[in-house]
Amino acid sequence: MGNDRTIRLLIEYDGTDYRGWQLQPDGPTVQGKIESALRQITGAAVRVAGAGRTDAGVHAAGQVASFRTPSLLPAATIARALNALLPPDIAVLSAEEAAASFHARFSAVRKKYRYSILNRPVRPALGRRTVLHVPRPLDERAMREAARCLVGTHDFSSFRCNSGKEDLPIRTVQALAIERREDLVTIEIEAASFLYKMVRSIVGTLIAVGRGKAPPSEVAAILAARDRSVAFPTAPACGLCLLSVSY
Amino acid sequence: MGNDRTIRLLIEYDGTDYRGWQLQPDGPTVQGKIESALRQITGAAVRVAGAGRTDAGVHAAGQVASFRTPSLLPAATIARALNALLPPDIAVLSAEEAAASFHARFSAVRKKYRYSILNRPVRPALGRRTVLHVPRPLDERAMREAARCLVGTHDFSSFRCNSGKEDLPIRTVQALAIERREDLVTIEIEAASFLYKMVRSIVGTLIAVGRGKAPPSEVAAILAARDRSVAFPTAPACGLCLLSVSY
Repeated sequence: MGNDRTIRLLIEYDGTDYRGWQLQPDGPTVQGKIESALRQITGAAVRVAGAGRTDAGVHAAGQVASFRTPSLLPAATIARALNALLPPDIAVLSAEEAAASFHARFSAVRKKYRYSILNRPVRPALGRRTVLHVPRPLDERAMREAARCLVGTHDFSSFRCNSGKEDLPIRTVQALAIERREDLVTIEIEAASFLYKMVRSIVGTLIAVGRGKAPPSEVAAILAARDRSVAFPTAPACGLCLLSVSY
Repeated sequence: MGNDRTIRLLIEYDGTDYRGWQLQPDGPTVQGKIESALRQITGAAVRVAGAGRTDAGVHAAGQVASFRTPSLLPAATIARALNALLPPDIAVLSAEEAAASFHARFSAVRKKYRYSILNRPVRPALGRRTVLHVPRPLDERAMREAARCLVGTHDFSSFRCNSGKEDLPIRTVQALAIERREDLVTIEIEAASFLYKMVRSIVGTLIAVGRGKAPPSEVAAILAARDRSVAFPTAPACGLCLLSVSY
């Protein structure tokens, strides 16, 4: 272990056909595909840590992962070999040697997610794997007004999806931007870390506001309630993408 | 026939899994899927004309099609029924009643295509169905310079792919724009009509220029030669999309 090198990977994937990033006993995961390719490349079992443990069906344009290996293969060779072995829906954009102390998850200081909504009456044919289709009109100005109260440090208990509640529910949302370009509404959200399904819980409530099911002002009340049952349903996984991780 | 209505459709499709727009004896086509759905909806055989007869693997964000039917169903009902019956990779964005004289192909005055190239070392995982991956750097300025001589009315024999040559090879390219946004290079081209595989032939030669295989000035010589054998290989279908049709 003492002489192991630490390798940092930048990874893009289409999560549609995966049970998420993290190893699962009962289905394919991105971590599983990468670990199995690395085992073929290095000849030994490798444990890979991902910065964001994306859920089933969630995509990534800039997931970061790290692992330790005694292999002496140059990082660029590892990247090429990974891309040759991995399925078409997972691509390693780069591999580089990192400091021994680097850990993709624990060293991360900020993560940025984007949620994409196709807002038009008709379902998508192109790009249908990476957007949520919302057929009825969304008022993105109301969504933007509602989002304002979520920026900053808050107890996000109303926007988490686990009952275990092993983590403290305090998180700091550093930015939350909502844009429309024709039929495409995007929600980008940045934080050092998120609670379980926090992004999709927030998006679900913002969509409800955009649809006129609740006034923008209600989101502050939902946040203050610190109770998941008062928020709107969690948005589906297909529209979510981990854009980037900062260190 | 005298009382038949003419219906105009706006259609989006992911062409990856089709043998193109036009009916083929040996595989699924977009026209075939739409005609078979219309037969279920109207109870009679329907012949649908498409503005652009896109090749196998080519996509459309704004294909226009027309057909005549004795059915009295409102156009909006036809659109809804089509979207319920069609597979997920074909969507009817709108249906409306048109003048009896309207014909999607013969009435079209201008078509606009976009070719999308992901220009980075690593293959795409996201959006991989709708881009061509070019791993080596493309010089989009050289491509833009080369494209200039193609705009206007010319004999495009060097950029057609059929030996039959049943059409006169004169066409008028009204616009040809090349843009780069980070790793994505797009080529948009507009004309009243195109020769068979003309867009992909032009793109193939522009990619060769972008790769430095030929100087921009050589494209004028290729055009003047009026000989397909002097141009570069035709670009693959996957990057091409019929954006819009004007009437």
